Amino acid sequence: MFYKWPLLKTLRDYNRDKAGRDLLAASLICLLLVPQALAYAQLAGLPAVAGLYASILPLVVYALIGASPGVAMSFGPVAVLALMTAAALAPLAAAGSAAYSVAAAGLTLLVGVLLLVMGFLRLGFIANFLSHPVISGFVSGAAVLIAVSQLRYLFGVSVDGLTLPQVLPGLYEQLPAIHGPTFALGMASLVVLLLLRNLQVLGVSAQWALRIKQVSALLVMLLAMAVSALLHLQADGVKVVGQVPAGLPSLGLPSLDLGLLRELLPAALLIALVGFIESVSIAQSLAMRKRQLINPDLELLGQGGANVASALSGGMPVAASFSRSAVAGQSNLATPLVGVFAAGLMLAAVLGLAPVLRHLPQAVLAASILVAVIGLVDVPSLRHTWRYSRAEGCALLTTFVGVLLQGLEIGIMLGVGLSLLLFLWRTSRPHMAVVGQVPGSQHFRNIQRYDTVQSPSVLSLRVDESLYFPNARYLEARIGELIAVSPEVRHLVLMCSGVNQIDASALDTLEAIAEQLQSAEVQLHLSEVKGPVMDRLKRSDFLQSFGGQVFLSQYHALCTLDPRCAVRALTPE
Amino acid sequence: MFYKWPLLKTLRDYNRDKAGRDLLAASLICLLLVPQALAYAQLAGLPAVAGLYASILPLVVYALIGASPGVAMSFGPVAVLALMTAAALAPLAAAGSAAYSVAAAGLTLLVGVLLLVMGFLRLGFIANFLSHPVISGFVSGAAVLIAVSQLRYLFGVSVDGLTLPQVLPGLYEQLPAIHGPTFALGMASLVVLLLLRNLQVLGVSAQWALRIKQVSALLVMLLAMAVSALLHLQADGVKVVGQVPAGLPSLGLPSLDLGLLRELLPAALLIALVGFIESVSIAQSLAMRKRQLINPDLELLGQGGANVASALSGGMPVAASFSRSAVAGQSNLATPLVGVFAAGLMLAAVLGLAPVLRHLPQAVLAASILVAVIGLVDVPSLRHTWRYSRAEGCALLTTFVGVLLQGLEIGIMLGVGLSLLLFLWRTSRPHMAVVGQVPGSQHFRNIQRYDTVQSPSVLSLRVDESLYFPNARYLEARIGELIAVSPEVRHLVLMCSGVNQIDASALDTLEAIAEQLQSAEVQLHLSEVKGPVMDRLKRSDFLQSFGGQVFLSQYHALCTLDPRCAVRALTPE
Repeated sequence: MFYKWPLLKTLRDYNRDKAGRDLLAASLICLLLVPQALAYAQLAGLPAVAGLYASILPLVVYALIGASPGVAMSFGPVAVLALMTAAALAPLAAAGSAAYSVAAAGLTLLVGVLLLVMGFLRLGFIANFLSHPVISGFVSGAAVLIAVSQLRYLFGVSVDGLTLPQVLPGLYEQLPAIHGPTFALGMASLVVLLLLRNLQVLGVSAQWALRIKQVSALLVMLLAMAVSALLHLQADGVKVVGQVPAGLPSLGLPSLDLGLLRELLPAALLIALVGFIESVSIAQSLAMRKRQLINPDLELLGQGGANVASALSGGMPVAASFSRSAVAGQSNLATPLVGVFAAGLMLAAVLGLAPVLRHLPQAVLAASILVAVIGLVDVPSLRHTWRYSRAEGCALLTTFVGVLLQGLEIGIMLGVGLSLLLFLWRTSRPHMAVVGQVPGSQHFRNIQRYDTVQSPSVLSLRVDESLYFPNARYLEARIGELIAVSPEVRHLVLMCSGVNQIDASALDTLEAIAEQLQSAEVQLHLSEVKGPVMDRLKRSDFLQSFGGQVFLSQYHALCTLDPRCAVRALTPE
Repeated sequence: MFYKWPLLKTLRDYNRDKAGRDLLAASLICLLLVPQALAYAQLAGLPAVAGLYASILPLVVYALIGASPGVAMSFGPVAVLALMTAAALAPLAAAGSAAYSVAAAGLTLLVGVLLLVMGFLRLGFIANFLSHPVISGFVSGAAVLIAVSQLRYLFGVSVDGLTLPQVLPGLYEQLPAIHGPTFALGMASLVVLLLLRNLQVLGVSAQWALRIKQVSALLVMLLAMAVSALLHLQADGVKVVGQVPAGLPSLGLPSLDLGLLRELLPAALLIALVGFIESVSIAQSLAMRKRQLINPDLELLGQGGANVASALSGGMPVAASFSRSAVAGQSNLATPLVGVFAAGLMLAAVLGLAPVLRHLPQAVLAASILVAVIGLVDVPSLRHTWRYSRAEGCALLTTFVGVLLQGLEIGIMLGVGLSLLLFLWRTSRPHMAVVGQVPGSQHFRNIQRYDTVQSPSVLSLRVDESLYFPNARYLEARIGELIAVSPEVRHLVLMCSGVNQIDASALDTLEAIAEQLQSAEVQLHLSEVKGPVMDRLKRSDFLQSFGGQVFLSQYHALCTLDPRCAVRALTPE
């Protein structure tokens, strides 16, 4: 069994000092978490408390079952998953309705269960399907969609849809109907937020600028709540968060409808994968700095448990947040227990904020979301990728544009499809070199790069990649080409020093090649076959049927097939 | 421009001798082609003439534009594509209706255009997505579905559907309604066919047995037509092929409905790929035996042209047939012009057969299909694959069962998905070895296999695969593991002798690794970076930012980082 309770190590030498540092880090996290939880709930189309609820139990559960020792990550709502939640639920129910909340809980549960299953089956490698350019294009596209989705709250108008072709025409039509007070409040919040986040430009010391930046969202929200309550802005038509249930979330399994869950499955899988990639990248980067290890399968279990906990407490899908984890990482000594402290503080915040939260204007939340996601649009990454590889730049751009125009799922599927296609295209043309003997040695090198000697009747071909189905056909074609232009060749030696595996397709191809070569009066041989490959070949009939020999080295092969080879090894030309 | 008219070479030294041989091969092909064309048209749910029409113009077009010199392939209807056609069209129109024929022509045109586009864009490599086990499972599953689909004609009952769960219950219910005379005629044909195909068992010489086997289907059909006409079987309720238009097919673009074409697109793509794989495998195997070359992109063009020609003459999707190409291959000297001769003979057959064809009972065609597809169920391939690799055996079985239960498209998608997953799983865990210096040499080998010496402060890691997105995360995790257990290490040298490329994801990962290692007070270096990889790295900022050096060889790296290395090279321990 691979599960060893990871918190044990932390608890064994826990003391008051560490508790003090963890409490400090937890406070910093909560200063960021409260406004983000409220904002991302709005982004997901859920009541504000869903974000807060998703920031209590999941933190505890992750800390208890998943956190690698020494890696203090902050779980909770994150922007991209919130948007993905909104995209998944929009076709099923009206945002804000009770059916919508039920569907959200079902989606969150599904995400959690998928992550748990992936963890138990050790399927974390599925995340490798998503290349960096595709993720970058996806996140940038999602950030733009998030920003655009919040314009309706900033303008005080109502528009449906998610993708640009759905939202922009509606927004344009509604421009004359902009609600003045809402817009003024939103723009004011935006300006204040941007100011508070860039105080170092105004000469404030870097340390203070950072501290103020971290509390800026909370400050603006508290201020806006006060203004809204005092001026009775709701009466003027400014939309606010509205009534918030007092007290604690009630725990319970969401009501499950199998048909609904089946519809939500593709979205849940994507949310699970994106959340996992984000979380495991953060964990990996925090761990390596401290020369520590993470266990990706354990991370899957922790993240799965956190999502199940979120579903049970009426929350939304959760993952690790980079900004909040970085805050915890500032105090380099924080332990995974920071999550437990943060959960306690969040509980207090929920109890304390509930009575006043209803005054919070939606436009202020929208402004804080806008400010937060600007940084997610990753233009430098596009520039670097494009310069480094046109093909991968195209994959990035395709994903980005696909997300903007066709939505999150189609966008990412386009990107994944394109990058798999590129990958397959590259790997289907592996590097192969005709090799010859370096005179005066037993070495065989590429005849195009070195002065070598070849035997007229023996062709030596080195394959620099494993042989499997993407390149099996190419191998056959390449050998066909070589044989067609070398009528005097009687032996073909395949030098397998770079072949780490041969799959069933390649084995079929080798059998066909051997047979076709025999029709053309050429005998196939192998050399330098690695141990594991040889073991597997012995399970097939190939070694009996192909009629050639398997040589220990290319030199042995040539010495057997052409006696002059041994002479050449001694006399440099 | 890559197109050079391939027939030119054939025509340059064509003479009466060659023409004689081509005519003989063409006659042999037609003996097989006539009954197959009729049968596969029935399999596709089309009128019998559609099969004949698909066997005239496509042969000429392929011979003129696509055929590689010296490779005499026989184009025309093939069993698996006929079934795929039936599967694609069944949801859109009733088999035998005019709308069905129009849709079939549209599908064929789409297949042709897709193949042409793939040829011009050189996208033949897409076929590499289909591994041999998946193709084998697909063809075996299709063969079973084909056999089951013909039982209705053999029993003289009517049943809808394609997959086993659709067809079998219906067949079972209809058992009491079996039409006696039809069943008797079908079973008689089946027995005679099986007899005629296995005459060598009865002591007939191998040569004659083969000759009779090749004409057996035609013989039985002619016999059945005569019996049916003389005994007026149609009046007894035996279903026959029915009225066949006399004269030649009229040429014309099928009426195109964009909505219909969009619905047919996925099926057309699959038909194009499967047909291409079948054709290019046959061409490759014929060519290599004669030390000749094929151009897969040219094959795509030829096959695309043949399908367009088939669509214009009211036919069905076509590909190269293995059995018929093998017949042409018997006369080892046949040229691509054999197709032109065969087309001429088929034209005569159409004109000659049209008046009598209507008497041909459907049950006899069904019997000939059953006999033909038995050999397509490839049990030995399952056995070999399973023994060679459990995982690939599973992919084969999944495809097979998927085809039987869920139909052709879902079955093949399951197989492709599973084999890509397996592939990604394998390639996401590349072989990496910590290497040490072999004392008394400048060589560095795997410390687990050789007696080596390591520097305490320098860790050398050799990666035996290119670095790209499927394994980028693994590289980071592996280095994290090594660093975590080696607290005294100050330098990490990545030996890149096996790295043929580094994609953008892996570059990001390398940058992150370098930065995280610096936080852990370890410096990253590279050694033995190949030229093309280095060229590409120079396009990024990595070489400036990672802070380490790029060494020509692992030995240079160690000599620079640990002076004792040079001493060890001289003193074996």
